[in-house]
Amino acid sequence: MKDTFGQSVSITLAGESHGAGIVAVLSGMAPGIPVDEDFIAAQLTKRRPAGAISTARQEGDKFEILSGVFGGFTTGTPITILIRNENTQSKDYSEISVTARPGHADYTAQCKYHGFQDYRGGGHFSGRITAGIVAVGAICISALAKKGIKIGTHIAECAGISDRKFCDTENEIDSLNEKLFAVLDEKAGEKMEDAILSAKNEQDSVGGILETAIVGVPAGIGEPYFDSIESRLAHMLFSIPAVKGVEFGTGFGFAKMRGSEANDPFRVDENGNIVTKTNNNGGINGGISNGMPITFRCAIKPTPSISLEQETVDFIKGENKNFVIKGRHDPAIIHRARVVIDSAAAIVLCDILAERFGTDWLR
Amino acid sequence: MKDTFGQSVSITLAGESHGAGIVAVLSGMAPGIPVDEDFIAAQLTKRRPAGAISTARQEGDKFEILSGVFGGFTTGTPITILIRNENTQSKDYSEISVTARPGHADYTAQCKYHGFQDYRGGGHFSGRITAGIVAVGAICISALAKKGIKIGTHIAECAGISDRKFCDTENEIDSLNEKLFAVLDEKAGEKMEDAILSAKNEQDSVGGILETAIVGVPAGIGEPYFDSIESRLAHMLFSIPAVKGVEFGTGFGFAKMRGSEANDPFRVDENGNIVTKTNNNGGINGGISNGMPITFRCAIKPTPSISLEQETVDFIKGENKNFVIKGRHDPAIIHRARVVIDSAAAIVLCDILAERFGTDWLR
Amino acid sequence: MKDTFGQSVSITLAGESHGAGIVAVLSGMAPGIPVDEDFIAAQLTKRRPAGAISTARQEGDKFEILSGVFGGFTTGTPITILIRNENTQSKDYSEISVTARPGHADYTAQCKYHGFQDYRGGGHFSGRITAGIVAVGAICISALAKKGIKIGTHIAECAGISDRKFCDTENEIDSLNEKLFAVLDEKAGEKMEDAILSAKNEQDSVGGILETAIVGVPAGIGEPYFDSIESRLAHMLFSIPAVKGVEFGTGFGFAKMRGSEANDPFRVDENGNIVTKTNNNGGINGGISNGMPITFRCAIKPTPSISLEQETVDFIKGENKNFVIKGRHDPAIIHRARVVIDSAAAIVLCDILAERFGTDWLR
Amino acid sequence: MKDTFGQSVSITLAGESHGAGIVAVLSGMAPGIPVDEDFIAAQLTKRRPAGAISTARQEGDKFEILSGVFGGFTTGTPITILIRNENTQSKDYSEISVTARPGHADYTAQCKYHGFQDYRGGGHFSGRITAGIVAVGAICISALAKKGIKIGTHIAECAGISDRKFCDTENEIDSLNEKLFAVLDEKAGEKMEDAILSAKNEQDSVGGILETAIVGVPAGIGEPYFDSIESRLAHMLFSIPAVKGVEFGTGFGFAKMRGSEANDPFRVDENGNIVTKTNNNGGINGGISNGMPITFRCAIKPTPSISLEQETVDFIKGENKNFVIKGRHDPAIIHRARVVIDSAAAIVLCDILAERFGTDWLR
Repeated sequence: MKDTFGQSVSITLAGESHGAGIVAVLSGMAPGIPVDEDFIAAQLTKRRPAGAISTARQEGDKFEILSGVFGGFTTGTPITILIRNENTQSKDYSEISVTARPGHADYTAQCKYHGFQDYRGGGHFSGRITAGIVAVGAICISALAKKGIKIGTHIAECAGISDRKFCDTENEIDSLNEKLFAVLDEKAGEKMEDAILSAKNEQDSVGGILETAIVGVPAGIGEPYFDSIESRLAHMLFSIPAVKGVEFGTGFGFAKMRGSEANDPFRVDENGNIVTKTNNNGGINGGISNGMPITFRCAIKPTPSISLEQETVDFIKGENKNFVIKGRHDPAIIHRARVVIDSAAAIVLCDILAERFGTDWLR
Repeated sequence: MKDTFGQSVSITLAGESHGAGIVAVLSGMAPGIPVDEDFIAAQLTKRRPAGAISTARQEGDKFEILSGVFGGFTTGTPITILIRNENTQSKDYSEISVTARPGHADYTAQCKYHGFQDYRGGGHFSGRITAGIVAVGAICISALAKKGIKIGTHIAECAGISDRKFCDTENEIDSLNEKLFAVLDEKAGEKMEDAILSAKNEQDSVGGILETAIVGVPAGIGEPYFDSIESRLAHMLFSIPAVKGVEFGTGFGFAKMRGSEANDPFRVDENGNIVTKTNNNGGINGGISNGMPITFRCAIKPTPSISLEQETVDFIKGENKNFVIKGRHDPAIIHRARVVIDSAAAIVLCDILAERFGTDWLR
Repeated sequence: MKDTFGQSVSITLAGESHGAGIVAVLSGMAPGIPVDEDFIAAQLTKRRPAGAISTARQEGDKFEILSGVFGGFTTGTPITILIRNENTQSKDYSEISVTARPGHADYTAQCKYHGFQDYRGGGHFSGRITAGIVAVGAICISALAKKGIKIGTHIAECAGISDRKFCDTENEIDSLNEKLFAVLDEKAGEKMEDAILSAKNEQDSVGGILETAIVGVPAGIGEPYFDSIESRLAHMLFSIPAVKGVEFGTGFGFAKMRGSEANDPFRVDENGNIVTKTNNNGGINGGISNGMPITFRCAIKPTPSISLEQETVDFIKGENKNFVIKGRHDPAIIHRARVVIDSAAAIVLCDILAERFGTDWLR
Repeated sequence: MKDTFGQSVSITLAGESHGAGIVAVLSGMAPGIPVDEDFIAAQLTKRRPAGAISTARQEGDKFEILSGVFGGFTTGTPITILIRNENTQSKDYSEISVTARPGHADYTAQCKYHGFQDYRGGGHFSGRITAGIVAVGAICISALAKKGIKIGTHIAECAGISDRKFCDTENEIDSLNEKLFAVLDEKAGEKMEDAILSAKNEQDSVGGILETAIVGVPAGIGEPYFDSIESRLAHMLFSIPAVKGVEFGTGFGFAKMRGSEANDPFRVDENGNIVTKTNNNGGINGGISNGMPITFRCAIKPTPSISLEQETVDFIKGENKNFVIKGRHDPAIIHRARVVIDSAAAIVLCDILAERFGTDWLR
């Protein structure tokens, strides 16, 4: 099943950058969850390009709930949200239909779809499609919040500049979720924005790392092996364009550790709860939550659309060519990708929790 | 579906460390693929502990094919392989049944299974279960080889010591697949083995990074979003105990790159094939193969079983305690995990290829 | 996954009778299949109520293709069709929100959704949702036709009146697909229509049996056990409201047969093809097609909405009551359900064929 | 996923008639369910041929639990049961390897597996594989019983002789489950056994209808459309060899009914529970349970293996031939299929209930 992900709670995603719009169907959500259209709109705003560090393409991201919500609450039947495309500059796509933009999927789409793909603006491969994940993910975030489960993501690194680490995780999540450029250390954030602008001025782009923490997930959720929390989250996270790495807890940092340092000692805390002194395992042992914050980091590659001239091929003629991508580009997408990560994680968590506790648990 | 993964080709995995044995069912493989029991045995040998750098537990890993093979060929119906447990030291497990070994799943298993889990030797969470992946994965590796698709993994880093990079990938894959301790640079390998022995002498363990390359996958395989090659491979890879990070191509290295460096320029090579000059994207654009080698790296955490005394809890009494894990431990598992990664990747590739080209394609 | 069905080719279905509209997403279809909007419209017309034997509710069934079609062809990425609701009489639904219409899902929806269901006009349970199956099914029917695979359904029985059997199946399929009231024997059809009108005059409704034949499916398609053609078709067919029985070939007629009669003798025909003399097994042995027409029959229960007074309960108060369903009712839906069966079968066949022969086969 | 069925609780099935044995993996069962090996053995006995009305092939059906059970209880991790084949008469299979036994899957297996199928005794298509369903189904039946959910099946019709209907369903289920030849009316049963013997004497076989009732399923279970109780049960039931029809409640009988008769009026009973006066809908409205007994009937075709000479083809030479199937045949399998139906239904119910109420609900 190619365009649907999840078991008890699932998302189906469709749409193209320059077609009628983006469609997301969220299936399996419990009935009776309040649906706050203002919150959905606010989440879409976090993903929408804004300011000098983003593309000039402006989308209103007006959405319409086509099904599954009645009287302001989820009905329990599938929820469909449509985000129509606007501001799709009508232009000549003849060059792009035969030219493989480096770092993009134009050539692989040609190999797979034999020329029938909608190549305009990247078509189905456009990052714009993730607006669908954000729209239905907002409902999942709301549902989780009522259960005391919170998700927050910060830009841990961008253009070589690092944010500080989480230290007071739950409060920091609340604070991050109020921000459009989500960093824990505002000064690091300013440096990142400067670096993004420098890249933009040089017609280039930058990448980075997003770090996410989830608090409030009870211990004992998840499965060993194929339905481990890591497997299901990573499956979803790698669905997001530009994500090229996912690590849980200390992740690749484990390579330089010894077991005596890496193992998180269990302790009984002052309230009698079992906790770990460190959280190198990112809240997950054997695929199953241990009650500590679930933490992971995603590597975000630099936006492939840059204004510099690039070497590439005409894949129809099979000829080398030099090429400049015209139009409006994001010098960075990491600040916009943040809410996509939050939303994607929320969908997966709702799925895992509904499977563990039943389809009514989230309401 | 918790214990089964894959769509056209799938694996179902069952068993415990100290139960009757490990069972793996491989479903959906094409009929007519030769099944070489010697090759299966050789692959299991790569996973089996051996020498001073591994645990002293010796398993013969004798396997029995229970179904799906007839006259030396796959029938097309499900293939079941049983690896019986031997050499399961009978000992007193009363302490381990209530004690959360740090870095292990004892506590999370208790939270999920409420005391009914088979705690002996980690039960279903034991790394030993991965022998099932290796056994059926061997059939997938054979099938892929006949189609010109080869998979190889080396220990890119262990205990802070790095191997060199792939440079002549296809030949290096062949060479790696002959080795028990898979490194490209034998001298780096010797240093790694020394470092593992040092950790062992200090009753400790080490982690590392495995790097995998796959050559021969045609362009145009995979899907955008949820069935991206990255999503499906990562889902499987994170099912393997000890894997805590997965990155494709340059992965987390993208964080410090600019787009102009990260984008892989397309070129027409001397044979008229479309290739990329660099391979930062690890052979995948938009979730779909571009014909370049598919490359990924897995972070392997240090073996959590160490002989040093550790802090932990008795999760039944809810009390802190100090604890020494008795018995035989691996100071490193990275050299043994290598063949598990190869096997897991082979299963996923067979699945993706069978879905793309049909159920007969692999024969 | 509750609202999605299929593996290589799948459908996701959403919407309510009186909400914004019906949404169907068709995923996994090959690229390059011509999409004929007129044919989609014609198929929807077959499902739409018409004439004296149907409800007076008139729906234009205007549809909009939101994604997955570009330049008149499928792109290979998910196809979304939206059919907006029109002519939704605004009326007082307060009685229906607490009253279990006999034979309907009002009470079971209450048990499952706890009052949050959209009860207007049956909400998500309305037969109207099947318009989504018809819309995307039309694309599947077109794709199959190009491969020489044809599907046709006739009203084998309605209100106790029987149509004749298929005898020249392929031509009869073509003929049936031109008809709005699909019978092989027009005189039987006239009697059925009279019987439907009689039921209508008596404020009642009638049921019947639909018989379907599929020609052109090559031998060797399908799987033993859980992915048998019967299992996958039946799964989909029982998703259609009002279908309460499915039988393949001779089906329940086997109960009175002996093996010597039931077994279909294999023969080599004049063209050297292997055929069977009879087709009691409905073209399927061991879950796999044998090259003969695939035949099945679906029992359609009488429309539960009738104008006669009925006994029922107020499920909020837990009190008995008598109840008359107001509004416009279908005295029969069998003639409208026909195209839903055809469409549902086409989706399943595309799925099975794409899985067998790969994702490009259908183009 | 071809050989696995189910979502929260699933079965994976493997094995051949003359291979090492039959393997069934039951995944997702709650931890803490007592596993009674005597009950599993008793259930297997119901499926095993016995007496004059069955084949002379005798199988001990000794089974071994390979995983997932510890200290007499389910662990919550996958349960594997192996039933080794015994008494596999070694004989010459050269004729059967090229001859399509009418009504069997030999020819379709050839078309699908290209000659690599294990043809001995029907291989993977043998009814013997259903012993795996019975073995793991026994655990599901035990789990459901503790929740007050009971399943019973009787031979409603065999060789043209009808049993009486259920009238005191719950007690009759208990009584049926004690019987090897499951009928409600012993005299009808005797006539059926006589008719089976007559068919046997004439080297022929007979078919019939099995009727199943399930009591104790709470209202509100199931889903609309693709995960309707009907869809999921039918999917599983049609996986069972010889099942060629499935109907719920009145099923095909609806064809001759009017809505006023077919609709089941809701009533509040003396205990304040909402019930229906009739149960034509078989306990299911809109795919969701209404609290009444779930009832369905399966058409079982006559055993295709008969001793009479039959017309068929040599599918390698492409030549007509006459053929006598040698060996031991069942003149009827309906009495043996009964426990397969019960077991299959139990697996599906556990799946649906676990999905609705969570993975711990069944314990």
